[in-house]
Amino acid sequence: MLVVKVGGGSALNHDLIADDVAELLRAGRKLVLIHGGAELTNEVATKLGHPPEFVTSPSGYTSRRTDRRTLEIFEMVYCGQLNKAWVERLHRRGVNAVGLSGLDGRLWEGPRKEAIKIVRDGRQIVLRDDYTGRVERVNSDLIRLLLQHGYLPVLTPPAISFKGEAINVDGDRAAAVTAGSLGADALILLTDVPGLLERFPDESTLIRKAHPSELDRLIELAGGRMKKKILGAKEALAAGVKRVIIADGRLPRPLHRALSGEGTLIGD
Amino acid sequence: MLVVKVGGGSALNHDLIADDVAELLRAGRKLVLIHGGAELTNEVATKLGHPPEFVTSPSGYTSRRTDRRTLEIFEMVYCGQLNKAWVERLHRRGVNAVGLSGLDGRLWEGPRKEAIKIVRDGRQIVLRDDYTGRVERVNSDLIRLLLQHGYLPVLTPPAISFKGEAINVDGDRAAAVTAGSLGADALILLTDVPGLLERFPDESTLIRKAHPSELDRLIELAGGRMKKKILGAKEALAAGVKRVIIADGRLPRPLHRALSGEGTLIGD
Repeated sequence: MLVVKVGGGSALNHDLIADDVAELLRAGRKLVLIHGGAELTNEVATKLGHPPEFVTSPSGYTSRRTDRRTLEIFEMVYCGQLNKAWVERLHRRGVNAVGLSGLDGRLWEGPRKEAIKIVRDGRQIVLRDDYTGRVERVNSDLIRLLLQHGYLPVLTPPAISFKGEAINVDGDRAAAVTAGSLGADALILLTDVPGLLERFPDESTLIRKAHPSELDRLIELAGGRMKKKILGAKEALAAGVKRVIIADGRLPRPLHRALSGEGTLIGD
Repeated sequence: MLVVKVGGGSALNHDLIADDVAELLRAGRKLVLIHGGAELTNEVATKLGHPPEFVTSPSGYTSRRTDRRTLEIFEMVYCGQLNKAWVERLHRRGVNAVGLSGLDGRLWEGPRKEAIKIVRDGRQIVLRDDYTGRVERVNSDLIRLLLQHGYLPVLTPPAISFKGEAINVDGDRAAAVTAGSLGADALILLTDVPGLLERFPDESTLIRKAHPSELDRLIELAGGRMKKKILGAKEALAAGVKRVIIADGRLPRPLHRALSGEGTLIGD
């Protein structure tokens, strides 16, 4: 079992990724696809007069400020425009895709953060009206039911809180928990760089292989979105996934490349 | 088996409908929910700078002009914002909802109209870049699979063409075909009037019961959206559904009311 997460950057080539997914499925590989949509959400939110805001936690992670209106726009883009575009793109390649959010069938369930600490102008403040959380339980029965009947599950945030609220969760970390719960042998995180870079954005400083023991150092080293990918990698390995590959989603056959050694391999 | 279609008018009370769905399910009823989203799509399309356009066929049916950009906005609203709001609303009531579009698992498949004839300024013209079609095949296996495992399917347009393109289809008629393919004993179409009115908008002229033989006359009589509801009713009856009820979606317990004789009953 392979879990593939496609990042939300606009430089990723969705057609080439879909081609490669279809090829892997024809070769008999079991696969689950997960996608993001951060960049397009920023654009649409701005057009709709509710521009995005990002907040930084005291430990340096950035995330989207998610009030109720942001959540609606997030669902429009992730679950509407992008998820259905993925499903359509895959059907045109003969793949019987079924798109679901983490709300559907309580696929991704976890706690909503009742209060989040953020740093603003150098001072810590607490937000209480944010709809953000974390995936703790995966309804892997529903994913397996679809796989067993020949469907390709195409999953996307948001998730659902234990109280039944839609919550914004990080897609890379949701993918990690999903890979763990399905006993996947690999998790591939496709992004718009060749992998983890020792000195971003210098692509010649690609780290080819990272041992789990190095991850805490690498999390410190990484900036922005990459920080959460490494955190996701760490969580996936802890959940029993054998290897995590951070790879380039802009090139032809990106999954075949990742599986044959390109990108950054994280594992023993 | 009961198929319920919730219209896309803003006057319908979604919370009261969800309460009633949850109550029927607790009482052991099998049910599939289908929803529209026309009014909100108009609003969002206007805000995004791509205002809606409606076209009229030579036989007097109006439909949304659906170019590729309209289809994207349509998916944002129907599959994103509204479908996920329905799923969340139902989960908060203890219903294990799974939201799907007609694209997912080729749930609603049919021909795309290669050319549509419309009347503009009194003259017939032909449009060739429209993504509109009709549902001919329902993947009732997928719906039954979800029902058997305790999930409530929550379905919404678009559908998928035989070539794998997303196509805008009428929700009422899709609900009719779905009810037929599931062998439903009733189809309830919830709308923002008490039922079919002899003289719209005079609610005192409600038609309590209509025999199938009267439907062609009633289609002539009806205007706008109601025309397609009656056409859907006709198609559902032809497909073996025993009764179609057009009922008020603004009131408490709208499904119980419809089942106990309120609204317009169409059947033998």
